Amino acid sequence: MNNFVYDIPTKVYFGKDQLSNLGSELKSFGNRVLLTYGGGSIKRMGLYDKVVEEIRKAGLELFELSGIEPNPRIGSVREGVRICKTEKIDVVLAVGGGSTLDAAKFMCAGAHVDHDPWEFFGANAKPIETALPLVTILTLSATGSEMDTAGVISNPETEDKLGRLAGPIRPRVSFLDPTLTYSVNAYQTACGSADILSHLMEVYFDTEQGMDMIDGFMEGMLRAVIKYAPIAIAEPENYEARANLMWASSWAINGFIACGRQCDWSCHPMEHELSATYDITHGLGLAILTPRWLEYCLDEVRLPRYVQFGVNVFGIDKNLEPMEIAKESIKRLSDFFFKDLGLKSNFTEIGIKAEDFAMMAAKACRDGNINGFKTLSAADVEKIYEMCL
Amino acid sequence: MNNFVYDIPTKVYFGKDQLSNLGSELKSFGNRVLLTYGGGSIKRMGLYDKVVEEIRKAGLELFELSGIEPNPRIGSVREGVRICKTEKIDVVLAVGGGSTLDAAKFMCAGAHVDHDPWEFFGANAKPIETALPLVTILTLSATGSEMDTAGVISNPETEDKLGRLAGPIRPRVSFLDPTLTYSVNAYQTACGSADILSHLMEVYFDTEQGMDMIDGFMEGMLRAVIKYAPIAIAEPENYEARANLMWASSWAINGFIACGRQCDWSCHPMEHELSATYDITHGLGLAILTPRWLEYCLDEVRLPRYVQFGVNVFGIDKNLEPMEIAKESIKRLSDFFFKDLGLKSNFTEIGIKAEDFAMMAAKACRDGNINGFKTLSAADVEKIYEMCL
Repeated sequence: MNNFVYDIPTKVYFGKDQLSNLGSELKSFGNRVLLTYGGGSIKRMGLYDKVVEEIRKAGLELFELSGIEPNPRIGSVREGVRICKTEKIDVVLAVGGGSTLDAAKFMCAGAHVDHDPWEFFGANAKPIETALPLVTILTLSATGSEMDTAGVISNPETEDKLGRLAGPIRPRVSFLDPTLTYSVNAYQTACGSADILSHLMEVYFDTEQGMDMIDGFMEGMLRAVIKYAPIAIAEPENYEARANLMWASSWAINGFIACGRQCDWSCHPMEHELSATYDITHGLGLAILTPRWLEYCLDEVRLPRYVQFGVNVFGIDKNLEPMEIAKESIKRLSDFFFKDLGLKSNFTEIGIKAEDFAMMAAKACRDGNINGFKTLSAADVEKIYEMCL
Repeated sequence: MNNFVYDIPTKVYFGKDQLSNLGSELKSFGNRVLLTYGGGSIKRMGLYDKVVEEIRKAGLELFELSGIEPNPRIGSVREGVRICKTEKIDVVLAVGGGSTLDAAKFMCAGAHVDHDPWEFFGANAKPIETALPLVTILTLSATGSEMDTAGVISNPETEDKLGRLAGPIRPRVSFLDPTLTYSVNAYQTACGSADILSHLMEVYFDTEQGMDMIDGFMEGMLRAVIKYAPIAIAEPENYEARANLMWASSWAINGFIACGRQCDWSCHPMEHELSATYDITHGLGLAILTPRWLEYCLDEVRLPRYVQFGVNVFGIDKNLEPMEIAKESIKRLSDFFFKDLGLKSNFTEIGIKAEDFAMMAAKACRDGNINGFKTLSAADVEKIYEMCL
């Protein structure tokens, strides 16, 4: 077990009708608020009007930036930074899913520096030492951006989609109201749930010994997502289901489960190249990749973790042969993604072509190898991509 | 599921050799530090010298208050408040177990008010709106005081032992080094582990529906404590065991698992009267009470929770009759406390007498009833005490 620093100070208002606290929370950071969001969905659901009303009631000055894209672009970040600087914004309020929240994180960081925000990304990334405070209202359970230090931004000019971690961009306050996800359709619910599961499995599948109690927590979240995602799809207004998915989305990636572990992630870098090249939904790419990655990594050394996963998450009989449990657990996971959630199961169906594998694999391994559960070279990544055809 | 606000900003340095960060963390709050601790054990283990060295290296001014009692007294709190005020202390550093940390919490609160700190307790308790910042170094895994908002203080004049919750007294920074608990003896390790288990079970045994994922986390912590407490007793320097107990102690009671639930605690108020009257170790009292409380509350309505506990924590065969699983799970818990941990199993052995039951039961129910898993009147509490003879 490695040493760690636990430091997750995001305050969360969880539940229905918590927006009455929005004004006072924003006001604690200042009077000039930049509200940023995506398309018109928050207007259709009436959320926009409620938010604006709370901001007005608190006597705050409101600025707006809408049109943040799915797979958000650096252009939107630049525009947000420009507004923050020219309007002397005190706090950014992001309303939406992971894309809007991620873009807002780098507006907050960009507002505190003189250089272009794209310089926060890549091999010679500039440091993020401070940032404007960020408050979020979440409308999609998936990326966990509402409580974490990460963001992913696309640059269409360079065809890059790059992630960045930095403490100062973690949201200060997040409003998590499960009823705001009632309107999320079946496909997006499925993709979001796949994203949450992937965040858990990227940490869970590790050869290092962590804390047993954290294993139990990860398994509890895995079971909860596997139980509640199909319920949320069948009954979009099931509060228990939406609440469990929402809280799991935050805790899968806020940093708590990774405390004491150091293993790199594997499926995320492999997937980011898919969505950078083909603009597919992140969670769909993860769902297709993850079972193949598990299959590719399975060997005698790693076997015990698969067995624990199969027994504790899927309830597979612990008296079976270990290898049989491992294979059955991969099959159960595939069935969950492709039958229970109804996601497409391979690259062919979604138009991802073998001719791009070498290029994408090289980009996924930009620092040489992916040092995750099993070390993967570009050649390994290509093989995993091939298994997805 | 109830709405909730999640707000647990304590920063934790977990692991060995993290004290090099102590000076900078203290300094972020100011230059005048009150170091408070219990008896001489932190000097014997060399911790006192290390702490003083870090404080000196950071150029901070050091004040001291030692001699904080187990079941800490209001007199120690008053003395700490006096020093904070006269010496214009900026930050309190508590080094020790839950008793020292609890006393320090009310020194921090008392330093910000003009009234006597005992007025923070009881029916007409004064508010705690602000407090001096508190930094802690933990030497015993038990109360969870290192990350929570609670403290319990005894007043020998009134024979009261009263608890208080308040956000501002939550430690800002805590140093959790499992190796600092290597010297904790078998009995204190057992009592501390019983305390952690009780914190988990007070929340776990609830008729309300919470988040499934939190059930998994609680079960993971219960299993971890049940696995590692006997290991820590047999091999006091087993790092994995000490680390799991330490992190579980924090997360059992920092407020996270209670998010969305509202049920009152039951065994803690019953136990506080035992240790107020007889000065017994808190965890021992809890170990004796908890299986009897579970036995007393068992009925058809509450049965499903016992079954989930038995199957998921003790691995009891889920195909048995539910009532059989429930009874077996209580038996397993008793065996764990009284055989595996070697704790005394009844009041008779530790000198608690039936003649005090009525008085203690009345005090435990000071507001009429204990509105926990099952509502308990003073008469119910008396019956549970009788089961402990």
